[in-house]
Amino acid sequence: MVEINHQIGIKGTPSQVYHALTTNDGLAQWWTNDVSGAGVVDSVIEFRFNGSGPDFLVTELIPDKIVRWQHHGNMPEAWIGTEVLFQLQQDGDQVFIRFTHSNWEQASDFMAHCNTKWAVFLLSLKAAIETGKGSPFPDDIQIDHS
Amino acid sequence: MVEINHQIGIKGTPSQVYHALTTNDGLAQWWTNDVSGAGVVDSVIEFRFNGSGPDFLVTELIPDKIVRWQHHGNMPEAWIGTEVLFQLQQDGDQVFIRFTHSNWEQASDFMAHCNTKWAVFLLSLKAAIETGKGSPFPDDIQIDHS
Repeated sequence: MVEINHQIGIKGTPSQVYHALTTNDGLAQWWTNDVSGAGVVDSVIEFRFNGSGPDFLVTELIPDKIVRWQHHGNMPEAWIGTEVLFQLQQDGDQVFIRFTHSNWEQASDFMAHCNTKWAVFLLSLKAAIETGKGSPFPDDIQIDHS
Repeated sequence: MVEINHQIGIKGTPSQVYHALTTNDGLAQWWTNDVSGAGVVDSVIEFRFNGSGPDFLVTELIPDKIVRWQHHGNMPEAWIGTEVLFQLQQDGDQVFIRFTHSNWEQASDFMAHCNTKWAVFLLSLKAAIETGKGSPFPDDIQIDHS
């Protein structure tokens, strides 16, 4: 199994970051503007990009510290069985997010694409909290011309 | 062993991308403005960030297709034994770079940081070729406040 790991430091409070990861309006500030279903453990969050996109089951929440999702449904196919984990750690006036998207079957080109794109969206999350303006889909930075 | 994988598509020609990966002036457009030593196989490229930084031995070059480096020296320590590979593939009017930084001993926080930062520098490379202006160090996008 292969996994994606990122780390980013955001000037803000753990509760600001946690809000951005656990609420529809928070998630809509940085990943895609079309989010529904965010909530407590066992919620299914529906992220949509022009009408289609992945669902995630919320499997663990520790306020201001841990957000864990299990991929749900069958889209995209390569994400089936994968898990996303955000671990938050305060360090002075910033919060480090340690991000892991694990259980990929292989280091495919699509996995490499998603890795680069996760960096783009984590930078969007950082900007959303630090400046009030992220770049969620459809305003996300494009990493290719496909 | 753990590895970092990215994929990015750049509107340009394979020879433009290859130039940006194999010459001092090309590399200085996107990674750090202080680069020396780039050249044929067995060259040692010295990348410097405020005076310190990694060296890489050029181990394979296939014009417009493959650039492979072996980490050289002892800095940063976690990079010892690692290898960087750029694979170029033309697809219509864009060139896909499939990037791999392999042979990491573990998925440390530093590895996660480097993964996010590689995305930033690959976006800088994309911008350098597409717009003529990348964001090499010291103008690189900061991913934390450390």
